[in-house]
Amino acid sequence: MRVLLLHGPNLNILGKRKPEVYGYTTMKQTNDMVRARAEALNCELIVFQSNHEGELVDHLHRYLGECDGVVINPGALTHYGLSLRDALEAVDVPVVEVHLSNIHAREEWRRISMISPVTIGQVVGFGARGYVAALELLLAHIAEVRPAGRT
Amino acid sequence: MRVLLLHGPNLNILGKRKPEVYGYTTMKQTNDMVRARAEALNCELIVFQSNHEGELVDHLHRYLGECDGVVINPGALTHYGLSLRDALEAVDVPVVEVHLSNIHAREEWRRISMISPVTIGQVVGFGARGYVAALELLLAHIAEVRPAGRT
Amino acid sequence: MRVLLLHGPNLNILGKRKPEVYGYTTMKQTNDMVRARAEALNCELIVFQSNHEGELVDHLHRYLGECDGVVINPGALTHYGLSLRDALEAVDVPVVEVHLSNIHAREEWRRISMISPVTIGQVVGFGARGYVAALELLLAHIAEVRPAGRT
Amino acid sequence: MRVLLLHGPNLNILGKRKPEVYGYTTMKQTNDMVRARAEALNCELIVFQSNHEGELVDHLHRYLGECDGVVINPGALTHYGLSLRDALEAVDVPVVEVHLSNIHAREEWRRISMISPVTIGQVVGFGARGYVAALELLLAHIAEVRPAGRT
Amino acid sequence: MRVLLLHGPNLNILGKRKPEVYGYTTMKQTNDMVRARAEALNCELIVFQSNHEGELVDHLHRYLGECDGVVINPGALTHYGLSLRDALEAVDVPVVEVHLSNIHAREEWRRISMISPVTIGQVVGFGARGYVAALELLLAHIAEVRPAGRT
Amino acid sequence: MRVLLLHGPNLNILGKRKPEVYGYTTMKQTNDMVRARAEALNCELIVFQSNHEGELVDHLHRYLGECDGVVINPGALTHYGLSLRDALEAVDVPVVEVHLSNIHAREEWRRISMISPVTIGQVVGFGARGYVAALELLLAHIAEVRPAGRT
Amino acid sequence: MRVLLLHGPNLNILGKRKPEVYGYTTMKQTNDMVRARAEALNCELIVFQSNHEGELVDHLHRYLGECDGVVINPGALTHYGLSLRDALEAVDVPVVEVHLSNIHAREEWRRISMISPVTIGQVVGFGARGYVAALELLLAHIAEVRPAGRT
Amino acid sequence: MRVLLLHGPNLNILGKRKPEVYGYTTMKQTNDMVRARAEALNCELIVFQSNHEGELVDHLHRYLGECDGVVINPGALTHYGLSLRDALEAVDVPVVEVHLSNIHAREEWRRISMISPVTIGQVVGFGARGYVAALELLLAHIAEVRPAGRT
Amino acid sequence: MRVLLLHGPNLNILGKRKPEVYGYTTMKQTNDMVRARAEALNCELIVFQSNHEGELVDHLHRYLGECDGVVINPGALTHYGLSLRDALEAVDVPVVEVHLSNIHAREEWRRISMISPVTIGQVVGFGARGYVAALELLLAHIAEVRPAGRT
Amino acid sequence: MRVLLLHGPNLNILGKRKPEVYGYTTMKQTNDMVRARAEALNCELIVFQSNHEGELVDHLHRYLGECDGVVINPGALTHYGLSLRDALEAVDVPVVEVHLSNIHAREEWRRISMISPVTIGQVVGFGARGYVAALELLLAHIAEVRPAGRT
Amino acid sequence: MRVLLLHGPNLNILGKRKPEVYGYTTMKQTNDMVRARAEALNCELIVFQSNHEGELVDHLHRYLGECDGVVINPGALTHYGLSLRDALEAVDVPVVEVHLSNIHAREEWRRISMISPVTIGQVVGFGARGYVAALELLLAHIAEVRPAGRT
Amino acid sequence: MRVLLLHGPNLNILGKRKPEVYGYTTMKQTNDMVRARAEALNCELIVFQSNHEGELVDHLHRYLGECDGVVINPGALTHYGLSLRDALEAVDVPVVEVHLSNIHAREEWRRISMISPVTIGQVVGFGARGYVAALELLLAHIAEVRPAGRT
Repeated sequence: MRVLLLHGPNLNILGKRKPEVYGYTTMKQTNDMVRARAEALNCELIVFQSNHEGELVDHLHRYLGECDGVVINPGALTHYGLSLRDALEAVDVPVVEVHLSNIHAREEWRRISMISPVTIGQVVGFGARGYVAALELLLAHIAEVRPAGRT
Repeated sequence: MRVLLLHGPNLNILGKRKPEVYGYTTMKQTNDMVRARAEALNCELIVFQSNHEGELVDHLHRYLGECDGVVINPGALTHYGLSLRDALEAVDVPVVEVHLSNIHAREEWRRISMISPVTIGQVVGFGARGYVAALELLLAHIAEVRPAGRT
Repeated sequence: MRVLLLHGPNLNILGKRKPEVYGYTTMKQTNDMVRARAEALNCELIVFQSNHEGELVDHLHRYLGECDGVVINPGALTHYGLSLRDALEAVDVPVVEVHLSNIHAREEWRRISMISPVTIGQVVGFGARGYVAALELLLAHIAEVRPAGRT
Repeated sequence: MRVLLLHGPNLNILGKRKPEVYGYTTMKQTNDMVRARAEALNCELIVFQSNHEGELVDHLHRYLGECDGVVINPGALTHYGLSLRDALEAVDVPVVEVHLSNIHAREEWRRISMISPVTIGQVVGFGARGYVAALELLLAHIAEVRPAGRT
Repeated sequence: MRVLLLHGPNLNILGKRKPEVYGYTTMKQTNDMVRARAEALNCELIVFQSNHEGELVDHLHRYLGECDGVVINPGALTHYGLSLRDALEAVDVPVVEVHLSNIHAREEWRRISMISPVTIGQVVGFGARGYVAALELLLAHIAEVRPAGRT
Repeated sequence: MRVLLLHGPNLNILGKRKPEVYGYTTMKQTNDMVRARAEALNCELIVFQSNHEGELVDHLHRYLGECDGVVINPGALTHYGLSLRDALEAVDVPVVEVHLSNIHAREEWRRISMISPVTIGQVVGFGARGYVAALELLLAHIAEVRPAGRT
Repeated sequence: MRVLLLHGPNLNILGKRKPEVYGYTTMKQTNDMVRARAEALNCELIVFQSNHEGELVDHLHRYLGECDGVVINPGALTHYGLSLRDALEAVDVPVVEVHLSNIHAREEWRRISMISPVTIGQVVGFGARGYVAALELLLAHIAEVRPAGRT
Repeated sequence: MRVLLLHGPNLNILGKRKPEVYGYTTMKQTNDMVRARAEALNCELIVFQSNHEGELVDHLHRYLGECDGVVINPGALTHYGLSLRDALEAVDVPVVEVHLSNIHAREEWRRISMISPVTIGQVVGFGARGYVAALELLLAHIAEVRPAGRT
Repeated sequence: MRVLLLHGPNLNILGKRKPEVYGYTTMKQTNDMVRARAEALNCELIVFQSNHEGELVDHLHRYLGECDGVVINPGALTHYGLSLRDALEAVDVPVVEVHLSNIHAREEWRRISMISPVTIGQVVGFGARGYVAALELLLAHIAEVRPAGRT
Repeated sequence: MRVLLLHGPNLNILGKRKPEVYGYTTMKQTNDMVRARAEALNCELIVFQSNHEGELVDHLHRYLGECDGVVINPGALTHYGLSLRDALEAVDVPVVEVHLSNIHAREEWRRISMISPVTIGQVVGFGARGYVAALELLLAHIAEVRPAGRT
Repeated sequence: MRVLLLHGPNLNILGKRKPEVYGYTTMKQTNDMVRARAEALNCELIVFQSNHEGELVDHLHRYLGECDGVVINPGALTHYGLSLRDALEAVDVPVVEVHLSNIHAREEWRRISMISPVTIGQVVGFGARGYVAALELLLAHIAEVRPAGRT
Repeated sequence: MRVLLLHGPNLNILGKRKPEVYGYTTMKQTNDMVRARAEALNCELIVFQSNHEGELVDHLHRYLGECDGVVINPGALTHYGLSLRDALEAVDVPVVEVHLSNIHAREEWRRISMISPVTIGQVVGFGARGYVAALELLLAHIAEVRPAGRT
């Protein structure tokens, strides 16, 4: 079982960006938390972050047919990254969308996600913990739909 | 620690409503699943379902100052239940919104939730399992914000 | 053959509400008219009116799998009663929507019905007679689609 | 008692147009059905179909002051035929609008009719039978409003 | 002279709901204040609160032809309660709309009231005192329009 | 000097169409009035009316390069007759748009003309007299721009 | 017979403002032209120009009940001068709106006039000549509606 | 205690403007009524009316820091007078907005007030009496917020 | 193999209409060019032009089941010709839409085609050559989908 | 070299208006700052402020052909002052628009300026210093375009 | 003669991406097809694909003044790639836009291209063949406009 | 004192891109001009240009906590670069937005900047000089807010 964990623009500075607002948990700590859970669930986790939409697309192509699911926080690409959307649709495995903050209680334009329609679900507003929940829900979904694993 | 689990209109017929689409898991089974997890987490779970917006509001008022959090699937009220929204805001405890299906891949009007801005987060698209995740995330959130419990 | 005849909010005062505008035909007279026709067509008619969206939903759930069609005038719920819409969709039998007045020649917001997309058709603007026509058209539709009746 | 039955663009190929979708009932059969009912109700029925908005307008002018009501399925002109609308308003007799399919469950632009505001009502979604119901409802309306017939 | 004082959803918890924001004046204190003024003005005041739109509609029907005016704070129903709107229009007596807070300085969607077009006026932003003013203005209006009282 | 006077759909029944609203002046009387003025101004007037957008377009093509200006009341085509618009633009002579009634004090959709941007001006709201004024203003405009007449 | 000729903001510099575009005819020459025609038609013409919406309103109030009609070019106030609109409606005599240029072939926002709904008609696009036509059409309208003049 | 009573454009002709619609109460009578109430409440009332937005702004500046509250009927400026809005916000005392008629039952554009967001409340639809209520509500508000008066 | 080549309103005057803009290639020359290519590809080409939407619809009906594909330049009907759209959908063969000019670099309203959703593709902006390309692409598409030709 | 410095509504109370927000720099101090810079750059500066749109228009007319550029802060007229816009366009010299605060980080309606399209540029958000920068940029622009000064 | 063939995001996986939907033709096969045609037409074809908008922009800059035309399928950048649009406009040679599928029969947001206004035309819906047609049409266009080739 | 000067997509070809429109000043000359001014003001200027949104974001992260302000011309990213917006907000130092041309006098979509709300101000329309002014205004702002420099 192999899952991609993708982080979009500006998530690399998590923990350093206005910590009084976004908390002191860094990207690395978040990834470690998810990786620990992935291992416990016997799942290989491929972690990748980029501030470039193109690199996120390239990365997804690299794992075309080579992964079982995706957990992604698209950052601001959520609202305009249509190339990323097409790539997520192309990989043709279940995708879960994560947001650290409750995007529905911020600027109006943050309320519509161009990514959600090509995902199976979203976990929104729970900080780093949301990633772990997303992974668990994704794996349970895969287990249910395809009990015998990839192949 | 006491949490309200609220189900809005039409969720009572879960399992009986077009089971080939919505699955065979009933409301009772879903509640049992969440209750089991609540017990394991040492949390009292008050379950309530109604097809009446007014009863959901009444129920929330009953627990004003008497609960620590809310997990709610507002059903179709998500999109127009402003009285429910005001009631959720009034109880003044963290609220998590749950949807069984991915509301962003259905009719256009299902994409905007009037409830989300008064919640701390959403878990969308994961069927019954989404409720369990929502409960866990809610309890973790409460633990973090108010480590010593209600009072 | 069993058909539900549902009336939404404010239809109970038909005949008493500005009779110079809405006519002197009461709810009871309307129901009698439709019931007479139903009997002539060998069809059991279950009549129900409520000013509560929740009760209309409850009522529909009660007849889940126990009725062959629905004739409904949703009253003002036509324009925002999404819980009622979901319930109508859930009963999974043909639904016909009726309006006493021509809703397209009144306030702009009365022109869009949230209910119509889950019905098989509408009869609009013909007062009490519209219900009778709706029943006839519904029964003919059922006869055509499922010649041998419920079972 | 004289009623015009008008069919707008593309209704002439009814029965030949994707019959697996629109059914095998032809325009002629539909007209015969309505004509039979009209005769039974002692009503002269003038039937006319055209793919030209202008001809529909010309036809209505021809019967200015010479007819008692109109049953019309404007086809796609429903959504942009403002000249037809003005003509229907000009004939100054009750008009009933008919649609074969439920236009509220198709493309978004089919939901708004420019014709409805100048009619007394609509019968939508019942195929050929809808025309018969429309005729009956129209005649009943005329009888009520003007018991003694044209003159 | 009989006037209905209606309170919509969530107004029952006035005084208990975030008192640092909405003040410590309770629903009962507000009602007492208005009742005192009503008595001084020789007017019978029927007070009713409900979190159910349907009950507000039922209540209005009960007083059809049996009251001279209505003072109402529809709570969140202001923005979507079209059944309530139809009921207020049906009672056919002057209606005054009251809001405790200035709804024009809050969320954008609170700026449009679906109720206002069927009222004679609004008093907005003055807390409990606004009800008293509304009653006085309503009675003065009735006195002017129909100097000799109901009958 | 040759000018086309064009009348769009439904203008042929002027005088017969709800005369208590639109007056008793017929199309013929209107044309005679304009023709008289044209003769006095030494101008050949070609009058044409049609309920068919296609015929209005055909007519304009017939006079391509053979006329000096156009006075047109497009009737309801004003709001959707884009083929007529393209034809008016193609004839490449000054066009004046006329409306009998004040289209800005009627339905909202009558306020935008798709024709106006390809005209030199409009005379709106003055009944039959508006045509005469339009002709005079057109001829004065032509005289100014091209003092020596066509050729 | 007394008619007000009103010019809104920036019309005073007519002839001096980019004459290669707007022509060399000045405000004075335009007024003289209209005044000559007014005299010939036995009508007193009161001319007034202001760049202040308030002065235009004051001026209209001054002639409340003391004039028979108004010809007005509201300049840019056309699109936002709602106080001017209310004043024009208050004087309660026929108003004709004039624009020098074809406002429908310029910026999009110039296409909607807030003034038109309170006028009887518009003459648009004919420069100074448009004022003369407007006066003639106004006087003919008044003569028709009220043959015996003010009194 | 000093309060400004401001009237916007066209309110000076109250009583003379279509009295069958707006009533026979003049501006002066309205002011006298409010002034009487102000005196009874021990409050200095500075009355000012202008048809010029600029003069209303100038007037407000004159009382910057020299008044305790404002009662204003902005007339049509309600819908576009953003300079007036900025001035009202600048005076930094409580403002109450008054409208004589129910602006929510007239033209669509009259439903949105650009002024309301900078006021503490509105009294709408009660004619001259609305001003008196507004003054009372304003004074009660000031008394509550700042019990010891200006300084 | 039989293909319909359809030209909508105003295309008949190609070459005569502002030739400095649209070029000197006439409709006949364009048709000859396409016909030559059709012959070379062993395809019967039925050419038809009309300024009447109704005639285009009639023509399509004539070839119902008697043609293999359609190349159409709908002219201005592109943007409102919904009857034509329904007819194109009814013929149930592949349709290619052609525009002489780049409609996306002209007026805003020319950017949306009501026809495109019922076609298989578009060739836009290449003048007469675009028709030839459209024919070639259509024939290749047909060959691929139905290698053995009609029948 | 002569430049107009124009200030729109409410700018006269700069320094007195909520100084804790807008700072203590007064209009006079701002003008002195700009005037000092103008003198250093050998430029005559004509300063004018008004709360009346009409006076700003009058002032611009006064300098028609008598000035080389304009620096303007239109205040709230930015968003609706179309008469001011037309006047700025009429003076036909380069105009620079200045705003003290960042209008893009305030209310949504402050984001669109009706004035910007007739200016050569904007300096927004820099308080009094923004005027000085605007003057410098304007003079540099003029020097470049017309090196030899007015004449 | 040198032409750039550009492919935007996700086009590199053509043939591998859901082949049952998008077909088995790969990017390489498509390029070979176009290259063969280019050679036959004596044209140098520079092929480039990237999932990075920035690289597409860089690539276009590299050929500034060094190419004669561009054929581009912008992928999802079609709908938001304004930097790519500016780059295409900057190269200042004819651009043809290609889409494999009919973007007008998919999601609503795919109907508007931000790229089309800076192209000379589009070929939409014809898969790989559309590129060949686009190249031919581009070369014919260049030949016509600049018969003697680049320089 | 260290300031970042950032240039977005397509600004690298300044001077080479249609020089008759954008002028002959190159990116390098612009940078030299700003650098000279920065040195005179004792400020270190870090210049960076990229056609990749991702690289602009990376660059900003590199200077997180290591710079005192940003001057940025986001090019077309102005209108959709939400990742860049988030990065600018994250660096948490004052940002000034610059545009070479007056974006308010071009295409409609260029009027709204997604970047402006996270800046302190904008300098728009003044070509290369605008950057120098922006730097000066930024430094003055920093000096005022934090007189003693970074640390």
